[in-house]
This record gives sequence, structure tokens and C-alpha cells, in this order.
Amino acid sequence: MEIITGGITAAKGFQAAATAAGIKYQNRMDMAMIVSQVPAASAGTFTTNVVQAAPVKWDRKLVTEESHARAVVVNAGIANACTGAEGMEYCQKTAEAVEHTLKIPANQVLVASTGVIGMQLPMEKLTLGIEAMAPQLEDSLESGHQAACAIMTTDTKAKEAAVTFQVEGKTVTVGGMCKGSGMIHPNMCTMLGFLTTDLAISKELLQEALREDIIDTYNMVSVDGDTSTNDTVLLLANGMAGNPEIIQKDENYRKFTEALHYVNTALAKMMAGDGEGATALFETRVIHADSKEHARTLAKSVICSSLTKAAIFGHDANWGRILCALGYSGVKFDPEAIELFFQSKSGRIQIYKDGTATDYSEEEATRILSEPEVTVLVDMKMGDAKAVAWGCDLTYDYVKINADYRS
Amino acid sequence: MEIITGGITAAKGFQAAATAAGIKYQNRMDMAMIVSQVPAASAGTFTTNVVQAAPVKWDRKLVTEESHARAVVVNAGIANACTGAEGMEYCQKTAEAVEHTLKIPANQVLVASTGVIGMQLPMEKLTLGIEAMAPQLEDSLESGHQAACAIMTTDTKAKEAAVTFQVEGKTVTVGGMCKGSGMIHPNMCTMLGFLTTDLAISKELLQEALREDIIDTYNMVSVDGDTSTNDTVLLLANGMAGNPEIIQKDENYRKFTEALHYVNTALAKMMAGDGEGATALFETRVIHADSKEHARTLAKSVICSSLTKAAIFGHDANWGRILCALGYSGVKFDPEAIELFFQSKSGRIQIYKDGTATDYSEEEATRILSEPEVTVLVDMKMGDAKAVAWGCDLTYDYVKINADYRS
Repeated sequence: MEIITGGITAAKGFQAAATAAGIKYQNRMDMAMIVSQVPAASAGTFTTNVVQAAPVKWDRKLVTEESHARAVVVNAGIANACTGAEGMEYCQKTAEAVEHTLKIPANQVLVASTGVIGMQLPMEKLTLGIEAMAPQLEDSLESGHQAACAIMTTDTKAKEAAVTFQVEGKTVTVGGMCKGSGMIHPNMCTMLGFLTTDLAISKELLQEALREDIIDTYNMVSVDGDTSTNDTVLLLANGMAGNPEIIQKDENYRKFTEALHYVNTALAKMMAGDGEGATALFETRVIHADSKEHARTLAKSVICSSLTKAAIFGHDANWGRILCALGYSGVKFDPEAIELFFQSKSGRIQIYKDGTATDYSEEEATRILSEPEVTVLVDMKMGDAKAVAWGCDLTYDYVKINADYRS
Repeated sequence: MEIITGGITAAKGFQAAATAAGIKYQNRMDMAMIVSQVPAASAGTFTTNVVQAAPVKWDRKLVTEESHARAVVVNAGIANACTGAEGMEYCQKTAEAVEHTLKIPANQVLVASTGVIGMQLPMEKLTLGIEAMAPQLEDSLESGHQAACAIMTTDTKAKEAAVTFQVEGKTVTVGGMCKGSGMIHPNMCTMLGFLTTDLAISKELLQEALREDIIDTYNMVSVDGDTSTNDTVLLLANGMAGNPEIIQKDENYRKFTEALHYVNTALAKMMAGDGEGATALFETRVIHADSKEHARTLAKSVICSSLTKAAIFGHDANWGRILCALGYSGVKFDPEAIELFFQSKSGRIQIYKDGTATDYSEEEATRILSEPEVTVLVDMKMGDAKAVAWGCDLTYDYVKINADYRS
């Protein structure tokens, strides 16, 4: 596996474009389109929220009922959630606009939206946006990057990743872009992820690979514990690498899942580190837990604790809050047995052992916690299971962004 | 039932004192003591965190194994949590200091601590504090108020409440004080509650009344979703009202539970409104849910949502975030059927109906949300169950307080 520069246009046969459609933001790009030269197998995972946005309903139906997809249209600014029958109609109309402009069947057009809930999309602007993007579609890395920029809301950086690997002598690429902050626990501004690959693989295995991988990647990210109505990850595989189609869980499938996992992990960490107002990526690694599920629960509990997140912002080695967050996670353990460490590129320090603080240097701990990526390592001393979760610190700017998001 | 001024000394035969013991804070009172003239039946509820502070272990044992208690010693500043065997020893020594000073058996002395985790208590200062408080014990309202002040950490106001009611011609009083912010979801600075009554009641019924009532009072408060290692509510009943002992769930028991519920609700609301950095008490009332448990879950989900809390701080009528928080609570419902309202003393406004926003005035909504007590009313349109939860807004000051709590 080789890490390469690029995003959704890295894989063969995928083009992208972006435009400033003026949907809600002014003077910036706010619409993007991804098009595969040939019909691609499609897979998707969606929010578990009871309240589901129109594009989520649209995509779930298409991914489930249709064998292929060819295009994805994304807008930032308005979420098209809580918009009733009118909202569903706009998904249909968006797909029809693509059909009309690019001769791609409407039932092969996926849609995604992010932004304010309860506002209707300005359909005319969307249609004009699609017409503007159609002639600009390109397979360049730059066009992929423009798309990654266009889908941002409160994100401060575009998020892209790509890798290549070999299957039966053919070079296969997996690339992707995303915006927002988490799948189970996303920022209201919604986690949207778009992945493309030129691998030939059956639709069933594609869906399974995606469903399995989000559990340990996007689902382990939390910015503020809220789950959006719009969270969506879509994965298209167009087969243009020319490999024999993967139809079983063989060595080639394993290589693909490894590549997919790399891209998803990279994107997940970018989201966590770019959480609203964040100044640091806050990682929690749980090792030696008694089960995988417990390891995940413990790691998530720590990165979701507002008190711990505020302490990370303050570069404060408040191990008591970490212990406390482990303690209310619902997982049973012996607080006297576990051990806690802080680590970053500035070093590693043990802060808790035998039921109480070690004799660590506060100064050293603060130095370690002052890096832009900080890890809490939790050794449960119980078994062999492990998990990693990613979050960010809780800052003044998180409050500022969310106190006046709509204004 | 009559609401009266007072706290833990309102009921007959209860004395209190406070002192500046210099445990961690300087130049303020940081220790309090409550003493009953006669042995009192005791009841307690404690944190569900796996990590439990030494005083929690001490009190749980005494409340379970001993028939009576006579004193409670509380300190602020150091939590005596994650302090190993030494921490347990300090509970014992504190009780022995009371035995030595006031001739109260050590096994009738409850203890409670709140503050920083992992630091050992300065035992000598605690002993001196007990010796200083002993001669100052008084049954005046002022001494109760001093105690309520002494147990505060990041609280900005002392929290006290009391009521009287009649049982067989005798006037019975229930009073209490608390500090912190919630039982299931408390601020790390810990929720501590102390209740006293001169009612004569069996220990079993006393415990049952307390256990039942915290579910709809303290357990419906959340400031930041974190659950402390030290959360404790203690209730002492010394029988000095002279009523015939309540030994069954009769009309007199019902009167008592009503009085207890009033005091607990009043204290719970004070805690929520005084959440760290809060500028507003944020209440969520769920009505017409299909079960009591679902009503509680839905109400809690809304008051725990960081995004909603930040919107309340910004006086922003962001009903989408409320709907979203209901949606990820885990309770199934039809988003098209429910209705949402904002209300405060400035009025009431319907903001959501039939799956989308009503045509409400943003200006009016902002005016309603600018009051110090704001309610979201959620009509689930499913059944007869209801619940209320209390939280606060998420502010810059919450971050500030928790980024540098230990410094």
C-alpha cells in the first residue's frame, strides 16, 4: 500500500467539479459534484438518528435498490432536513437536473446536503449550479480538492486522503474526502464522507467492507456527542482498475479493506482535529480491555467528556477526569488495576497507577499536553482488546461558533 | 405544605456549623458539620461511577449497616477520590475526631468530600476544623446557611430549601442544602445533597422515599454529562416532630414524599441554574410520551446536547438541534407528528409542527429565549407520560472554569 496525494479524483475514471451556487454562503464555493465515467457499484452508511434528512432517505433507497450509481451532488449551507415532502422533491429534481445536463439516469444520482435544518433548498440555484459544474468536470487532483473545499461548513481545512495498492498486477486506488466531525457523534454541521475506488468488486462486498470499517473509524470520532440528521458516507467502485472482480473475502479483499481503513482513519483524524473551535487532536487509545466493544466504549467515553476536553484545552494533566469518564462509561473494571499515560511527540509519561497518581512532573505533563496531537493511553490490564477514539479539546471558540451558528 | 425559609437546620433538633479549615481554599469557609441532637434514621444514594471516592464507600457502608447516624462532616477543595487505603483511613479518622470532640460514636458519623481528585486530605487541618466547629454548632437558620456556603466549590450561590407539613397534628419540617450540578450527570465538582427532617419514619421507608425521588429530581439534572466519583445525597430523620412513626405507605407517607419532592426539585433546579458558567436555567418538559422512561430519556437528551446548550446561550431559536437531540436519544417516534414550543416568563411560542418549522417570529423567539429561565416544551403526541429535565446553557465561562480548574 502506498500513500499518495489526492482525494476523490485519485482513482481512475472519477471526475469532480465545484461551484459558487450562492445557496446560503456568499463569495465561496458551496456545491460539488462527483461523476464516474462508467456506472459504479455503490455502498452507503447513514445516520442512526430517528430524524433523517431528505437526502439520507433518497440515498439509502438508491444504494439499496439500484445496482449502480454514477454521480453525487453535494451542497453546503442548507441541510434539507425537516423539510417534508418538498425536501424529498428537491432530491428528485436535483437528480433530474443531472440527468438533463449529463445524460446520467436520475436513479444513478446520489445527493448530500449539510448546513441549517428546516430551511428549503433554493432549487433554481441548485439547477444553475449543476449546469455550471457540468462543463468543468475534470479528473485532476485540483478539481478533487476544489470539491473538498466546496463541501465545508465550519471546517477550517479541506480533508482528503488516497492510497494505491496492487491487485493481480493492476494498480488500484482508493481516495476520499469528507467534512464535519463524526458519524455517531457528529457536529450538527454533519459528517459527510465520499469515497471512490477504481477497484472491481461486488456490490455486496463493497457494502460489507464499508459497514465494517466505519465502526472503527468515523464512528470513533466525536466532537460534541451530537448525532446529525444528515450523516452520510458513500463509496463508489467503478472497476476501471481492470482487476478481476472481487467476489469473495480473499487476499485481494483484505488488501482493499486495509486501503479503505487507511483512508477512513486518515479522514476521521482530520475531522476530529478540525472539530469546531479545536486547538488539538485528542486521541484515546485503550489497550488490554476484556472485549473490543468495551475498549470502544471506554475510549469513546474519555474523548466525549466535556471536562476532559476542557482540561486538554488548558494543557492540564487532570487524570482524575479521565478516570472518572472511564468509570461512568458503563464498563466494569478495577480502578486500582488500570494505568494511565499521556503521550505526544514531546514524550510519554505515566500519570496513574495502583489507584492513585504517580509521582510525575506536572511541568513535563503540561509540555506533553501542549502539542497539537495529544494521546491518552489507557491500559485496562484485563485482556487483549484495544480501540482508538478521536476527539478534540473544548474551547471558547466551540461555544462561539455554536452560540451564533445561524446568525 | 408550606414553603419556608431555611435549609438543613430548619427541622427540629438539627444543628450546623462551618469553618475556614484551609484545606485547599484560602480565606473562605471550606468545612461544614451537621449534627442531630438525637440519633436519626439515615438514608443515602450514591454515584453509579465505577470509580468511587473513599467517603462514598464509607457512607454507603454506614447507611446500610448502621441503624442510625448523628453527624455529617463535609469538606470542599479535595475530593478524597483515588486516594487508596490512606483515603479510607482519613474517613475513619474524621469520624474518630467527631467521636472524640462530641462524644458521638464514630459509626454514626457520615463524611462527604468534593474537589480535586487524587490528592490526600490534610488530616490535621480536618481535625482542627472539627474542633473549631464543635462549640459553634447552632440550630439557627444562619448556621445552616453558613454550612451551605462552606460546601460550595465552583458554585456561585448557596442552595437551600425547606417546607413544613402536618402529620397527626404535629408540624413536620423537611430542609436541605446542596452543591454542584447533578447526580447522574454531575459536574466533576460533585453533586452533594444533605437533607434533614424531624419526621419519625422507619429507616426502610426513608430509604425508599429518597431512592424513588432522586430519579425525577437530581437525576434529571445535567450540566455537562460527566458523572462524578463523589456524588452523594444523604437524608437524616430524627423523629423530633413527635409524630407517630410512619411505618407504611399511608397518607402521612404520601405527604412526606410530596414535601421531599418539593425540596429536592427546588435544589435540583438551583444546581442546574448555577451550572458552571451558566447564564440561564434550561428546562425541557416532555409531555404525551409513550412511557415515563422514554419521557425522561428524551428530556435528558435535549438538556445534554452541547449544540442546543450553546444555542440557548446565544438566544438562538435553533429548533433543529432540539429535534436532532430527540432523534438520537434512542427513543423511536415520528418526527412529523411531534410539536415543539419555547416558553419563558416572556411568553410561549410554537416553533415546530408537521415535520417543519412553524411561521414563528424569530424576534419573538429570541425575546423568549433571553430570560434567565427558559423552557423547551416537547409534545410527543403518543401517550400520557411526562418528564422534566434541567440543565443550563454552554458558555465561554464553562470552558474557562474547566480549562484551568486545578491551577
